[in-house]
Amino acid sequence: LPKKHQGAETTIFAEMTALALQENAVNLSQGFPDDDIHQNLKILLAEATAKNFNQYAPMNGLPMLVEALIYFNHNRNISVSQHELTIIPGATYGIYTALASVIEPGDEIIILEPHYDSYVPAIETNGGFPVFVSLNEKFEADFDAIKKAITQKTKAIIINSPHNPTGKIWKKDDYEQLYQLIKDTEIIVISDEVYDLITFDGHEFYSIWHHPALRARSFAIFSFGKMFHITGWKVGYILAPEELSKAFRSVHQYLCFSVNTPAQYALAKHLEHFDVKANSQYLQEKRDFFLSEMKDIPFHFNEKAEGSYFQLAKYHEISDLGDKEFSIWLTKECKVATIPLSAFYQDQRNTGFVRFCFAKKEETVLKAVAHLKRYF
Amino acid sequence: LPKKHQGAETTIFAEMTALALQENAVNLSQGFPDDDIHQNLKILLAEATAKNFNQYAPMNGLPMLVEALIYFNHNRNISVSQHELTIIPGATYGIYTALASVIEPGDEIIILEPHYDSYVPAIETNGGFPVFVSLNEKFEADFDAIKKAITQKTKAIIINSPHNPTGKIWKKDDYEQLYQLIKDTEIIVISDEVYDLITFDGHEFYSIWHHPALRARSFAIFSFGKMFHITGWKVGYILAPEELSKAFRSVHQYLCFSVNTPAQYALAKHLEHFDVKANSQYLQEKRDFFLSEMKDIPFHFNEKAEGSYFQLAKYHEISDLGDKEFSIWLTKECKVATIPLSAFYQDQRNTGFVRFCFAKKEETVLKAVAHLKRYF
Ligand SMILES: CSCCC(=O)C(=O)O
Ligand SMILES: CSCCC(=O)C(=O)O
Repeated sequence: LPKKHQGAETTIFAEMTALALQENAVNLSQGFPDDDIHQNLKILLAEATAKNFNQYAPMNGLPMLVEALIYFNHNRNISVSQHELTIIPGATYGIYTALASVIEPGDEIIILEPHYDSYVPAIETNGGFPVFVSLNEKFEADFDAIKKAITQKTKAIIINSPHNPTGKIWKKDDYEQLYQLIKDTEIIVISDEVYDLITFDGHEFYSIWHHPALRARSFAIFSFGKMFHITGWKVGYILAPEELSKAFRSVHQYLCFSVNTPAQYALAKHLEHFDVKANSQYLQEKRDFFLSEMKDIPFHFNEKAEGSYFQLAKYHEISDLGDKEFSIWLTKECKVATIPLSAFYQDQRNTGFVRFCFAKKEETVLKAVAHLKRYF
Repeated sequence: LPKKHQGAETTIFAEMTALALQENAVNLSQGFPDDDIHQNLKILLAEATAKNFNQYAPMNGLPMLVEALIYFNHNRNISVSQHELTIIPGATYGIYTALASVIEPGDEIIILEPHYDSYVPAIETNGGFPVFVSLNEKFEADFDAIKKAITQKTKAIIINSPHNPTGKIWKKDDYEQLYQLIKDTEIIVISDEVYDLITFDGHEFYSIWHHPALRARSFAIFSFGKMFHITGWKVGYILAPEELSKAFRSVHQYLCFSVNTPAQYALAKHLEHFDVKANSQYLQEKRDFFLSEMKDIPFHFNEKAEGSYFQLAKYHEISDLGDKEFSIWLTKECKVATIPLSAFYQDQRNTGFVRFCFAKKEETVLKAVAHLKRYF
């Protein structure tokens, strides 16, 4: 095994899903919806291949999808040109490739903990060094701590809102505070916004592209998998100002080159009918159903998720095991799989939290709750 | 623009396809078939999404596709386990990610010229250095020259058979000669075998995985895009012994993580009915049709392609322009787009050759020939 990957482990999401299958547990770990998808998407995918949308799409994306996204973003006050938007095979790919296109050996990349597990290996594979800054106790950005972490070598900072796994959403002022910290530097922002269209209780989503000065130095990454509940289609898009888009495409064209054409056709057509508000409403009902069904189980939900399809839960009343041991125990004994929050920290620290994915059918949640009630 | 990508140019395939569109020329440049695809593939893609194959596939691939490929390879005397096979979003991705998983800063990677244009940027983005060795005058491997290029820093060599753009196929003995050169080293082979199922005139295809000692240190990369004429579906697979597969997956799981699920389902089912011989026969007829229609045009086809869907043509009787200028001229003036062979050389040297893609409908070829006849 080449030296650089000797320590590589399997991603926690694959690990817990495999354990759930093995233990015949209800899988509330890996983030994917188990509902049927919109009928129209099925029809459109069949139509795409029937109409011979089966050969290479252009490197930056199928024109009809690029146009549909320009229009979609225009309607939420993000104006973007075709030179600033690239279709990608999923958001994880977008983050990796953005890093590959800016990192030079020895660069430092600031990431806020807890964080998604692909960030660190993506930085390291590209020769960079992650610098960790913890969110505060309320899982909000700690701008004093970020300021202290900035050095001459800081190439970029990765942010994520709505946040996986805490469900927190950045406020307008958070972006301004970030801007004040970096405005006299050349630091780039890589903004993971894959849950942009899943926000609850009137919490408003702000993209980094809503901030005029930050957008000039930012990648913003979006995911159709999260937007249309089709995590297996593996299509997303990335916004970046023209020069950064050029850098991105210079890697992308030799990495994956282009993205599944039939899916791009279907998504372009489906986007015309997409109801943003109904999507959030649909998932808010799922969150609330989950929380109300769980009310007699001794987990503590200090704060409801503001967005995303994840809910953190404190388990101190149930167990004093470490996060991962508790998750494994819960899967094996109670037949409910979750993700330990420790997996989102570099040092795998124990936090007393696990993460539930609530983007599930009512019957799935009811089955999980029935399993838990047998114990508690 | 970050320093590392300041020199980046657009891939020649996108460039010539864009020029063909702009000039309303017949596009025999970028390699993709323009025929309708197999009806069964369309039905199966619709079936996949209807049957709810819409969420994340496992990181290494949908089990039914992995199994189908193990069986398919077994039937051509390649025995491979599930730990040695990973589904990828296209062969270009497979080559990039194999490089990302083995290169350490300063490593040298040997590539044989002429070569596919993604190899060099993929090496350089990952911190390696390409070392160029020319094929001999017959476009065969020059093992003495390869031997001289090997140093202490050589991490890998990239080979490609059937070869793009020359259509040459490696013989059994070529693999043995390569083995003799590297057997006392730790050099890894990255074998681009995307045209494995397109071979003509009884020329036999040998995979590097048919060589028992080489397979233990080789990545072999395959493409459904080439195999089933669906370049836009972006699915392929990579074989590597278990340790190398582990390294590959340790990058893959944080780069793209998984591949379009509906497409994987359709490919698994379609593979059961795939007729390897008929596929080569179908393309051999296209090659022969192209060559016979071109017989009165003053291009010279020194040697017929042994495999792939490309045919090199010498144009010295027509023009003394450089390769790229000639290709542009041919597109603009004669309304036929090709790829200049110079694009496959690091120094863009002029060779007097252009490459035609003949995987086209008869009417497409006839239209191109009619355009050419107006000139010649
Ligand atoms: C790549 S699998 C992980 C899915 C996901 O986004 C999550 O569970 O957090
Ligand atoms: C990625 S587009 C290039 C297609 C191809 O393989 C070729 O034309 O050689």
